[in-house]
Amino acid sequence: METLKVAAKSNPKSVAGALAGVIREQGKAEMWAIGAGAINQAIKAVAIARGFVAPAGIDLVCIPAFVDIKIDGEERTAIKLIVSPR
Amino acid sequence: METLKVAAKSNPKSVAGALAGVIREQGKAEMWAIGAGAINQAIKAVAIARGFVAPAGIDLVCIPAFVDIKIDGEERTAIKLIVSPR
Repeated sequence: METLKVAAKSNPKSVAGALAGVIREQGKAEMWAIGAGAINQAIKAVAIARGFVAPAGIDLVCIPAFVDIKIDGEERTAIKLIVSPR
Repeated sequence: METLKVAAKSNPKSVAGALAGVIREQGKAEMWAIGAGAINQAIKAVAIARGFVAPAGIDLVCIPAFVDIKIDGEERTAIKLIVSPR
């Protein structure tokens, strides 16, 4: 499954476009976000992507989960969002 | 449908408990959050609530949407999260 890394500076509309593309090609997508700003952009991207794929009869939902990752040797907790048709 | 208002200062575990309670009683729930901090807590609450209801065979998903609301006469865009079994 394709993983999209979302940052606080990511443009939600651009992320939504990428998300819709991955879902059309692979059926579902995964986003990773660390921190409130990044999670905010990721969630906005899902709301926007719902509109992109709805005309094709796809009703997107998302499943949030915690995931521990290591960045520069430091443990961080990221949020993983699995986005797939209902 | 019950609406839970989530703030940046909300405790995700407490919100998760409330969320699980509403879902057990009413089948689904709605959360409203304004701003990155509040959305962050709301998403964490969904991840935690998934663990609370999973033993009962419930696989929670969430659907984010934009909603325009008026607070003190000022227009704000909130994020509405509909949380329901898959």
